[in-house]
Amino acid sequence: MLALLLSASLLASSAEEIRAVLDRQARDWNRGDISAFMRGYDRSPELTFAGQSGVRRGFEAVEARYREKYSTPAKMGKLRFSEVEVRMLGENHALVLGRFDLDRAAAFGGPASGRFTLVLVKRPQGWRILHDHTS
Amino acid sequence: MLALLLSASLLASSAEEIRAVLDRQARDWNRGDISAFMRGYDRSPELTFAGQSGVRRGFEAVEARYREKYSTPAKMGKLRFSEVEVRMLGENHALVLGRFDLDRAAAFGGPASGRFTLVLVKRPQGWRILHDHTS
Repeated sequence: MLALLLSASLLASSAEEIRAVLDRQARDWNRGDISAFMRGYDRSPELTFAGQSGVRRGFEAVEARYREKYSTPAKMGKLRFSEVEVRMLGENHALVLGRFDLDRAAAFGGPASGRFTLVLVKRPQGWRILHDHTS
Repeated sequence: MLALLLSASLLASSAEEIRAVLDRQARDWNRGDISAFMRGYDRSPELTFAGQSGVRRGFEAVEARYREKYSTPAKMGKLRFSEVEVRMLGENHALVLGRFDLDRAAAFGGPASGRFTLVLVKRPQGWRILHDHTS
C-alpha cells in the first residue's frame, strides 16, 4: 500500500514537472528567447520534430528550424498552450497532447493554431521532449 | 552479459512485432476491412487520435471516424506505410514515426499522404496503438 501511494505520488509529481516544462517554454517563447525555449527539448541526436516540412532530426536541426521560421520576436508572436493532457508511459517516459495558439500580427504571418503530440523522457536534469509532432 | 543479450533480443523482437502490426493494418485496409484494420488499435477508452478535425477519444470514436471518412473500399484506396521507425520507450511502450501514402482515384478523394506519430503499448494480446497523430 505504501509502495502504491509512493508510486501514485511519483507519477503525480512527474506530471507536474512536465507541465512546468511546457509553462516555462511558453514563457521563454514569449520573451523572444529561443535558446531558453529549446531547453525543453532533449539535447541529443535522438530528438525528432515532425511537422509540415517533414521530420527534423537532432537538437541542432530542430533549433535551426525554429530560428529559420521565427527569426524575430514579431514573427514568434505570443504562444499559448492549452488542453494539455499528460499520460505517463512507465516511470521514465510520458505522452503529452495539447493545443497551441500563436497570437501574431498579420504582417508577421498572422495567428496560427494546431495540435501537438509530445513524447518526453526523464533525464537526470529533468523531463525533456524527445519527439514533437505539431500540425 | 546474458541479461543484456536477452534484453537486446527482447527489444529487437518487440520492434519486429510492432512492424508486423502495421504491416497487417495496411493489408487489412487494402482488403477494405476496417474492423480488421482496427485490431491494430488499443480497444480501450484511452485510445486517442489527433488529426485535422481535433482529437477523438476512445476506440469507438476512432473507429467511427474511419467509417465516416472511408465509407467504401473506393474511398479507402490503397494504403502504404513507409519510413517506419520504431523506438522503444522502456519495455512496454514504443514510439513509431512514419509516412503514409494513400493511392486513390480522384473521384473518391484523390491521393493523400502525410506523417504519423504513434505510441504503442504492450498488451497481453500484443502491441496496440494507444495514440495516433496523423497529419
